[in-house]
Amino acid sequence: MPIPAPLTGVVPPVCTPLTPDREVDVPSLIKLVDHLVDAGVDALFVLGSSSEAAYLTDAQRRLVVGTVKAHLGGRLPLLAGVIDMTTPRVLDHVASVTAAGADAVVATAPFYARTHPAEIARHYRLVAARSSVPVFAYDLPVSVHTKLDAELVLELAADGVLAGLKDSSGDLGGFRAVVTGARTRPGVAGFSVLTGSELVVDSALALGADGAVPGLANVDPHGYVRIDRLCREGDWERARAEQERLCALFGMVGVGDSGRMGSGSSALGAFKAALYLRGVISCPVTAEPQVPLSEGEVERVGKYLATAGLL
Amino acid sequence: MPIPAPLTGVVPPVCTPLTPDREVDVPSLIKLVDHLVDAGVDALFVLGSSSEAAYLTDAQRRLVVGTVKAHLGGRLPLLAGVIDMTTPRVLDHVASVTAAGADAVVATAPFYARTHPAEIARHYRLVAARSSVPVFAYDLPVSVHTKLDAELVLELAADGVLAGLKDSSGDLGGFRAVVTGARTRPGVAGFSVLTGSELVVDSALALGADGAVPGLANVDPHGYVRIDRLCREGDWERARAEQERLCALFGMVGVGDSGRMGSGSSALGAFKAALYLRGVISCPVTAEPQVPLSEGEVERVGKYLATAGLL
Amino acid sequence: MPIPAPLTGVVPPVCTPLTPDREVDVPSLIKLVDHLVDAGVDALFVLGSSSEAAYLTDAQRRLVVGTVKAHLGGRLPLLAGVIDMTTPRVLDHVASVTAAGADAVVATAPFYARTHPAEIARHYRLVAARSSVPVFAYDLPVSVHTKLDAELVLELAADGVLAGLKDSSGDLGGFRAVVTGARTRPGVAGFSVLTGSELVVDSALALGADGAVPGLANVDPHGYVRIDRLCREGDWERARAEQERLCALFGMVGVGDSGRMGSGSSALGAFKAALYLRGVISCPVTAEPQVPLSEGEVERVGKYLATAGLL
Amino acid sequence: MPIPAPLTGVVPPVCTPLTPDREVDVPSLIKLVDHLVDAGVDALFVLGSSSEAAYLTDAQRRLVVGTVKAHLGGRLPLLAGVIDMTTPRVLDHVASVTAAGADAVVATAPFYARTHPAEIARHYRLVAARSSVPVFAYDLPVSVHTKLDAELVLELAADGVLAGLKDSSGDLGGFRAVVTGARTRPGVAGFSVLTGSELVVDSALALGADGAVPGLANVDPHGYVRIDRLCREGDWERARAEQERLCALFGMVGVGDSGRMGSGSSALGAFKAALYLRGVISCPVTAEPQVPLSEGEVERVGKYLATAGLL
Repeated sequence: MPIPAPLTGVVPPVCTPLTPDREVDVPSLIKLVDHLVDAGVDALFVLGSSSEAAYLTDAQRRLVVGTVKAHLGGRLPLLAGVIDMTTPRVLDHVASVTAAGADAVVATAPFYARTHPAEIARHYRLVAARSSVPVFAYDLPVSVHTKLDAELVLELAADGVLAGLKDSSGDLGGFRAVVTGARTRPGVAGFSVLTGSELVVDSALALGADGAVPGLANVDPHGYVRIDRLCREGDWERARAEQERLCALFGMVGVGDSGRMGSGSSALGAFKAALYLRGVISCPVTAEPQVPLSEGEVERVGKYLATAGLL
Repeated sequence: MPIPAPLTGVVPPVCTPLTPDREVDVPSLIKLVDHLVDAGVDALFVLGSSSEAAYLTDAQRRLVVGTVKAHLGGRLPLLAGVIDMTTPRVLDHVASVTAAGADAVVATAPFYARTHPAEIARHYRLVAARSSVPVFAYDLPVSVHTKLDAELVLELAADGVLAGLKDSSGDLGGFRAVVTGARTRPGVAGFSVLTGSELVVDSALALGADGAVPGLANVDPHGYVRIDRLCREGDWERARAEQERLCALFGMVGVGDSGRMGSGSSALGAFKAALYLRGVISCPVTAEPQVPLSEGEVERVGKYLATAGLL
Repeated sequence: MPIPAPLTGVVPPVCTPLTPDREVDVPSLIKLVDHLVDAGVDALFVLGSSSEAAYLTDAQRRLVVGTVKAHLGGRLPLLAGVIDMTTPRVLDHVASVTAAGADAVVATAPFYARTHPAEIARHYRLVAARSSVPVFAYDLPVSVHTKLDAELVLELAADGVLAGLKDSSGDLGGFRAVVTGARTRPGVAGFSVLTGSELVVDSALALGADGAVPGLANVDPHGYVRIDRLCREGDWERARAEQERLCALFGMVGVGDSGRMGSGSSALGAFKAALYLRGVISCPVTAEPQVPLSEGEVERVGKYLATAGLL
Repeated sequence: MPIPAPLTGVVPPVCTPLTPDREVDVPSLIKLVDHLVDAGVDALFVLGSSSEAAYLTDAQRRLVVGTVKAHLGGRLPLLAGVIDMTTPRVLDHVASVTAAGADAVVATAPFYARTHPAEIARHYRLVAARSSVPVFAYDLPVSVHTKLDAELVLELAADGVLAGLKDSSGDLGGFRAVVTGARTRPGVAGFSVLTGSELVVDSALALGADGAVPGLANVDPHGYVRIDRLCREGDWERARAEQERLCALFGMVGVGDSGRMGSGSSALGAFKAALYLRGVISCPVTAEPQVPLSEGEVERVGKYLATAGLL
């Protein structure tokens, strides 16, 4: 199905449930998709950071896209990450995920390789030229170690290279430049500007963003759907209250002991523990070499859920 | 063939010649292997940074290992990079390159994913547990964005997890800690400590390194073989003179205009231009999305070769 | 005069006009203060980044505070930066600026010295213990190279160490955590949470910030005063339009050629060129070793002013 | 007294002993100077990082230079750091330390302020133009957050702006470029290239460095003097053995618990504890806001001293 232009609303970056031996847990993945669709989200994004895409083998990635596509049918648009180091490797993923049914692909700038703005532009132009579906840029400096420049994004949008941006940079000022540019610049009609932040979705929508891709929407999709609806109704006060409730819930990402594990292990472990505690998935395990949460840390996730009224 | 323990001498990280349409240029790759073997190097390392591993598809990676293994036979040990983001993906590469004949694998810490020392240790333990050949650690902070800690490396060496280290961190103090520790610590016999620097191979050997993996050895393998021999003979003065000649030659990595391309494009472009000008490979092209050197920049590479007596 | 608790509204970080031989241009500084006061701002902040505090000698810093205090009298509260590397040096500045009349001091975490959260906390506790006026924390990771943690700020607020925060980190999610915590946590009443961003003042006020400290308010104080008023009236739509006009104006910070100067030279040069072109200051020169804007670059600043209706 | 051109040998960056109430402990400072001079060092460097210059007030800095100069008389050259953010502030320190008797000044690139290679060059040109004594560049990326480019250093050397370099970057390849350039480039005669590393002084001297400025030379000046002498005699093997002994001793910098303090507190605390345990200074306290070592951590410093034969 064609991706709306622009794509609006809540687009959860779907977690990838795993079995205890770290294979994709297909029944749990289907239950998670139902959990999200039933909450009224607008599209799904698989194989992003919240999906542990960096930890999934190519076979697992294909299985995820195929499973979600088959279960979703044409009900909602399906975006898929094509996370890899450089153009030739990304193009292999583009072929793979579009064959499995992705309606759009989401690509970062090159990483690991030393890069340059001219090479980033060249990368997106090549990916778009060989992709049969629209290409979204994924700005994630914490992983990619460069920041996508607003001007570059708008130039690639105007040239029809990029169909949208998922901005997880945390820099709302640069995000605004893309939002405003996408509205005012000739040739950029229909470009989708999506925030990847969990914490300022109301702010992003207020300044004109099309939608949001918050990892925490796995845990509480209803909350983000409510924010989106309240913002569209112009009820900023209640949107803010809902956002503040979700900010408190987001505190769960810090349950893991930083002496024992990285912030990624803690955050993804917390999301999966929450999905497990809410009965959505069968096993909270994360991919290797992430360190699992302790029993006490999982209990603290439960307290966050209880406080947010989710248990 | 078993990797010597320790592996000593010059181990060029073999460039990957490409055709104009960016496929692996097998005849050029074979000529390059001959060029290196004939110069008297001690082993070969494929699929590292100088090989543009980050830019090669999985099929191209397999073709590179298979080609070099078939041509090399058992004449020299063959190490192969397994560069990918996390453990499950690295393990797929381990299976692939060992099937194609690699005698050892070379793995970085996780990247793209946020990480932690405990997760890096877990990563190497899992990789080693499932690899049929020895595992070398690859310390390349400019790409991986974390630095391998000397103490962690020595601990993994003592536990039999790591067989060696390729250190491209540029931090000779930390490197020395591994060299000294590998000599003095119980249970670390046979551990290989290799510098990835082009510029201080004489210094590294003088302080006890086992060998070197310099990208510039593609261009002038004889020079690095001479340094290694002079150092082993204790002729430090002539080793230093040879090293200084190679430092001057290494200046070629800066020929590319930094307004137009990144430092990676410039350095890899210069190595390949030099191999092309020396008649070793048929085409100097680098992988996408790297920016090619201009004609004038290639001419400047030629001047570096001429000054070093290589044209 | 006592600083309001919380301090609200627009608090321009006052530029420091210089003479052609780089001395403080006292008459221009007084004119700039009038320009800001007449626009209806709520307080003034001298010796911050927009003031080129890092470039001013101690004598010049004293002259700036003394001049502004004398001219301002008790009309508005006066905050002064005490920017230096560590506690003992900061304490010297605290003594100096309070003697010259500052009503509050604004201090960063230690920089240049390698630091640690425990040392940052100790730093603020010592500064507050020896300051006769309230202490604001200044979060400016681009200069200080560490980020102030929201939890640490709230803890220091609850303990009466900090009276407020000027957040120039660009991280609106972390900013929101302080805003919300300052409202809900026991013992933190009256804490001032101010954004240092030029680009998302409407967003910051919408989520509950007390005020803003935008460098661009030197150039267009009326614009920021309008945003503040519109936000307080709940007229978010017109606040956003005004903010978007100011975002476009802010584009002036990029007029400087990045091949010839740093982003600081460009931004501070543009602010001062704008003040010069608007007739507020007599000379647009910036402190050494910043590179001056070219004539053409100054002309481009003029075009930004014209587009914004300020010429 | 004029600084030798080049300055050679061991130049300890002198620690600044403090009293329990954090004033300069003048008698201990004099004893420390004697300890260093008696060991046969070649010059002294005050107000560098090992001196806690970032933590000293201007009055304390003046007292340090004056005390050391008065005690030293003309026996050895005295270099003094002029560590501050930008040119105007550095120039104030230049005036102050030369008035107090410094024979040369040591300046970093601008920090805190965002900078640019053109601004760094401008900075050094202005400092040199207004300094009555030779100017050394101090390359310390861990504090300054930019790296001095070898080419820029050599250009400033050839123009007579810089008299030498203290390189604490840890990048021996870049250091070698300066060493070699200083020997071969026209107009750079007499330029001093000094390593700031504790761990590779033998390597640096072997590749042609003029001398070393190791913080650990406070604790064991005799060791570094021995390395220097052995290297000049070409006895590389014994130099390496001595260096390895000092590398083991340097392990003391890690005694501090990283959960409780930063690496600076740990390293400077260890140096001062060692000087205290060796009877050179009266009190091991470091400046605020550094966290002091615990009793157990000080004991571990003692063990390092014992192992190195220094107790």
